[in-house]
Amino acid sequence: MKNTQRNFVDHIIPHRIPKQKGVGKAPVNIALSKYWGKRNVDLNLPTNSSLSISLPGLGTETQIEWIENQSDQIYLNETKMAFDSSFAQRIRIFLDLFRPSPKGGFIVNTVNSVPTAAGLASSASGYAALVLALNDCFQWGLPLKRLSLLARLGSGSASRSLYEGFALWHKGQLDNGMDSYAEKIDQAWPELCIGLLEIDISTKPISSTKGMQNTVNHCELYQAWPDKAEADLQKIHRAIQDKNFQQLGQTAENNALAMHATMIATWPPILYWQPESVAAMHKIWQLRNDGCNVYFTMDAGPNLKLLFLKQDATVIQTHFPSIKIIQPFPQ
Amino acid sequence: MKNTQRNFVDHIIPHRIPKQKGVGKAPVNIALSKYWGKRNVDLNLPTNSSLSISLPGLGTETQIEWIENQSDQIYLNETKMAFDSSFAQRIRIFLDLFRPSPKGGFIVNTVNSVPTAAGLASSASGYAALVLALNDCFQWGLPLKRLSLLARLGSGSASRSLYEGFALWHKGQLDNGMDSYAEKIDQAWPELCIGLLEIDISTKPISSTKGMQNTVNHCELYQAWPDKAEADLQKIHRAIQDKNFQQLGQTAENNALAMHATMIATWPPILYWQPESVAAMHKIWQLRNDGCNVYFTMDAGPNLKLLFLKQDATVIQTHFPSIKIIQPFPQ
Repeated sequence: MKNTQRNFVDHIIPHRIPKQKGVGKAPVNIALSKYWGKRNVDLNLPTNSSLSISLPGLGTETQIEWIENQSDQIYLNETKMAFDSSFAQRIRIFLDLFRPSPKGGFIVNTVNSVPTAAGLASSASGYAALVLALNDCFQWGLPLKRLSLLARLGSGSASRSLYEGFALWHKGQLDNGMDSYAEKIDQAWPELCIGLLEIDISTKPISSTKGMQNTVNHCELYQAWPDKAEADLQKIHRAIQDKNFQQLGQTAENNALAMHATMIATWPPILYWQPESVAAMHKIWQLRNDGCNVYFTMDAGPNLKLLFLKQDATVIQTHFPSIKIIQPFPQ
Repeated sequence: MKNTQRNFVDHIIPHRIPKQKGVGKAPVNIALSKYWGKRNVDLNLPTNSSLSISLPGLGTETQIEWIENQSDQIYLNETKMAFDSSFAQRIRIFLDLFRPSPKGGFIVNTVNSVPTAAGLASSASGYAALVLALNDCFQWGLPLKRLSLLARLGSGSASRSLYEGFALWHKGQLDNGMDSYAEKIDQAWPELCIGLLEIDISTKPISSTKGMQNTVNHCELYQAWPDKAEADLQKIHRAIQDKNFQQLGQTAENNALAMHATMIATWPPILYWQPESVAAMHKIWQLRNDGCNVYFTMDAGPNLKLLFLKQDATVIQTHFPSIKIIQPFPQ
């Protein structure tokens, strides 16, 4: 596995000679059309393409430096992480792909501006920021599409976090994974709002990596997912171009619910929902019934992300007092 | 539609001459492998076969009598139902299929011994009892398999309520529906227990008939359901023959969750679950994690039906104080 990944990296980066202290910054992103299922686990190649929106102001800033004759040191939010913590281990394994020599180590300082309360995964912004920092440190001068390929190895959804605004991660066709990268969809939608609704911020009972593998292997309904996911992505892409909010909202909500449906139909069952998640869904459907143009999406967790337009922000804030509203595009 | 149904009935019943006051009695049943989707709406022909367990002591008792020169009178639990109530209308439309003449009517007295609190559908036992009462009233002397065909026209799952114990409703192949009937699986399992866990007994937001039609027409994941349902039924049938409780439990639970998954992935979404349904699921999974051999199934509603063996009944009763435990087989 390591070899497969290292060969992949060799095809992208020009060298392994660090030049300077590197810095990188990347936003978190929310998939409107979800990534669920890998066709190649080693290279993080997805079964289907996905489409996301980045959340400016929420993300990760990372500094990296190579020091000879010293082991890796990983700091998260100014706290040094134990060498064998799962967080530090995962980063060290990723950094193995870029290490100039076996002697020496990286000093990594990573700061998440994702409020814990938002219930957002920081691995996407984390690996995107780390790859940007590596690009700076090694002075590779790689374009974002190439960096997207590298970020993908750390976390699939990180491939989309290289960009502000909408991004599309092409699943690609090649076995070597060189065509599975994300690119920006150059379209702004200033009225679009995302509402982060926190249900539960405790650790997931099952990681999304394990969740999607179990779904792929132990869910009969999953066979219908890849085609649906591609069709949904096309619908959402068109909705963005046409600024058709209803089309965007209902496709995104249906796509998220279908992803959760494949988990629910897996054995053993995977249910990230808490009772409060279901209460929030019923509340959103009631609001929609009453004429408010609001939809939601959910990732591999119990929290909801509401989709609505600026004109409805006050109503949403009233009905969900604890919601955090974000406008992804400059106003 | 009426003609299609009347022609179907003509193939089964020998005549339309009432002989006496008729009586019939039938139990409710719970599908372990679900019926979800019709391939023919007029004839209630299912997309997939299903397998159920009847609950003795819970069901319907019906008396019927034909009176010349009088209109239909429908009594439910000793209360006369308004002529144009949806309950009376549905029964009158069904009775049209058997009416000796346009002049005259049926007096129907139907009593449900299903406690409202159990959250069980009574249409299955209702139409099975009504067909038994008609068979008695007209003195047709039809075998249960033939009566099962007739009950199916009233409500698909009623085809399975002609029997005590396990029943298998064959989906059938014929366009005319003559091979889509239920028959008894002649196997007792005295240790088997069903626990009825009431979450909410208010009226469903969407009927199961409408729910399944929407799923068939507006859910991409549904395409994988019919094959899965057939495979699950075979596994459950084998589990019954082998008295393999784990196999029965996990297949039934997975089958029910997969059925709900197809609803969740439908647009607009169909979610019968309430927050308390999800709380109960998590509790059951926790109990199972702790070593208790308990599973659940759910129908088109928020209530859970727990599956376990007699040896675990005390533990289950302790964790779910309000549960109603039923042993489907003679002790």
